[in-house]
Amino acid sequence: MKQLTVKTKSTSYDVHIGEGVYDLFATQYEELLNNADKVGVFADATAASYHLEKLEQALKAANIPFVLHILPAGEESKTPIGFMNCHSFLLQHHFTRQSVLIAFGGGACGDLTGFVAATFMRGIPFLQCPTTILAHDSAVGGKTAINMPEGKNMVGSFHQPAGVLFQPELFTTLPKREVRSGMAELVKHALISDADWTRSLLLNSNFPHFSAELLSTELLKGIQVKADIVAQDEFEQDLRKFLNFGHTLGHAVEAYFGFGKVSHGECVMIGMTYSLLLSETYGNISSEFTKSFIRFAEHAGYPIQAIQDVEFNSLLKFMKMDKKVSSGELVFVLLHSLGHPFTQKVSERQCEQAYLELNSRIKEEVFDDSKRSKGSNNRK
Amino acid sequence: MKQLTVKTKSTSYDVHIGEGVYDLFATQYEELLNNADKVGVFADATAASYHLEKLEQALKAANIPFVLHILPAGEESKTPIGFMNCHSFLLQHHFTRQSVLIAFGGGACGDLTGFVAATFMRGIPFLQCPTTILAHDSAVGGKTAINMPEGKNMVGSFHQPAGVLFQPELFTTLPKREVRSGMAELVKHALISDADWTRSLLLNSNFPHFSAELLSTELLKGIQVKADIVAQDEFEQDLRKFLNFGHTLGHAVEAYFGFGKVSHGECVMIGMTYSLLLSETYGNISSEFTKSFIRFAEHAGYPIQAIQDVEFNSLLKFMKMDKKVSSGELVFVLLHSLGHPFTQKVSERQCEQAYLELNSRIKEEVFDDSKRSKGSNNRK
Repeated sequence: MKQLTVKTKSTSYDVHIGEGVYDLFATQYEELLNNADKVGVFADATAASYHLEKLEQALKAANIPFVLHILPAGEESKTPIGFMNCHSFLLQHHFTRQSVLIAFGGGACGDLTGFVAATFMRGIPFLQCPTTILAHDSAVGGKTAINMPEGKNMVGSFHQPAGVLFQPELFTTLPKREVRSGMAELVKHALISDADWTRSLLLNSNFPHFSAELLSTELLKGIQVKADIVAQDEFEQDLRKFLNFGHTLGHAVEAYFGFGKVSHGECVMIGMTYSLLLSETYGNISSEFTKSFIRFAEHAGYPIQAIQDVEFNSLLKFMKMDKKVSSGELVFVLLHSLGHPFTQKVSERQCEQAYLELNSRIKEEVFDDSKRSKGSNNRK
Repeated sequence: MKQLTVKTKSTSYDVHIGEGVYDLFATQYEELLNNADKVGVFADATAASYHLEKLEQALKAANIPFVLHILPAGEESKTPIGFMNCHSFLLQHHFTRQSVLIAFGGGACGDLTGFVAATFMRGIPFLQCPTTILAHDSAVGGKTAINMPEGKNMVGSFHQPAGVLFQPELFTTLPKREVRSGMAELVKHALISDADWTRSLLLNSNFPHFSAELLSTELLKGIQVKADIVAQDEFEQDLRKFLNFGHTLGHAVEAYFGFGKVSHGECVMIGMTYSLLLSETYGNISSEFTKSFIRFAEHAGYPIQAIQDVEFNSLLKFMKMDKKVSSGELVFVLLHSLGHPFTQKVSERQCEQAYLELNSRIKEEVFDDSKRSKGSNNRK
């Protein structure tokens, strides 16, 4: 079992990854859970159908009674109504300020459970037990939220978990698309922090399907990048914005297709190709790197051609809802060079030009068979 | 104009009371408001119909454009749907993380606006411009919340305002019932902090209808009590619970009759008579004091006889939802003596006995004409 500590001004907590992490319910987290008058497990329906037994057994072994609330699978749960249903559930089961929640599921489950914990009677503690690779990102750092019809993660709080317990065994049942989704955030952590790490990921022909051992090591590296940033800027005043690399267009694509229809990480991968292209203009990223990144993404199975038929203006209206928008202007996280992010205001006209350019690059790299094989060769 | 400063670990802000406080938009709050990309005014419908012009003029004089959102009057606005409507309004008007909200209304408006500000894109600043006496309590201290069908203020956040601006001129249009409601919280602040102040309030035959001058002085005293407590315990770990004196039964009565049907302060006044009665058993409050308090409340127009036909069990189910409930046991704020509060677990059986006793006391003090006049005499 590996672990690291996330330290913010207000609190500090551990992230654990490896077999047997749930044994910590009986040791490190015994006091928290046994002092609670009620423990609520909010479990994603899909995660629960595969793996709930593992969590239940560990809680039983630690002698922790709990109340179970099954959430609709994935992003479907993160709605205003879903949020209020969770609160009614807690009230009807007589939860109090002395109660504790456990999130058992992917990013959506963690975001929703965290926001419920942040706001139930003005705040109770919660533990994150992520069941997806994607959640290596969202489970750490205390960002919680629900989606609104107008945009993703628009309503939420900063509320740090009391601990994060990754059991990588659970990842073995993830569909390939979910693995891709999660690994996109890992690539993001590499891109904004470390050129060598980025290159090693892009050159690994097994990407995104790593062995359990390599996966644990890589995820912990990703979490460390995030933990270091969150330690310096918990409330996203400056540095933390860098973790949004690829997310401005990514969220817009996700909203355009309908949350959950194209996976979050797939959308972020599209968003990162766009940010790299903008970084050619505003930073020193080479067009060769962007092209190789497009080929890498396509080869790894990301549906980057999904935006080929999407009008720029359809995405623009969602981009304008981005939380980084400042005085009406779009703000992007871009790269000076690999590992060196910065934020940049970009005009709508330039955004549109870059979008058209991205689509023509994708066409060129993805639909040109000679380049495809060249792309694959490059990566081996 | 008078003012005091509320200092918490995380922040510090001023509370201003007096004529001309809105001129501060052009001075002390000019930077906050002019740096905002949007300013939203969330105004209670009733308050707006009487006084919005004063706020509008001040904002115009300070050259601050704003977007107006009218909320349903009173507690009707503090619902899950009302909360989500506010967020949709902000998103549709392209508010961002750089925006600021202003709450213009009573406690409900401030609670709702504050909770929206706490959670819109994970938190934006807001100013409190309370229009009721009751809000002298709720506008200070950073407690924000909405009501759930299961109970009052069950979902919320701690989110301190950037400033609180009381314009007492607005209080002149308040219905008597609203004045009573607000002054109950003032009595609470006296009861938990200062025996002499309590006695002077109870002996003032004009209570609750004070002159503007006296009202400003008294409200500032009440706010100071709250500010001192919040400074020591922002997140209600211990001391801050004392501000809940009278609220355990008070909230239950309010929920029983339907939020807004009997005013908050009227319910708190009933709750305080109950807490005083329990303080006879667990503290050193004399039965004579409780009786004189019942006569005082009745004489001042509080509908304390409203609970005469209410079964204890109908209230108990709401009391069990109280946020102070610990491991299933009811916890009350009681008084050792005037000005000296403490918290106390009380069994359901004892709660019921005290409730029956309270009703018989009310009957005795309120419906016995000889005592009524005696009560009035006592207070002169």
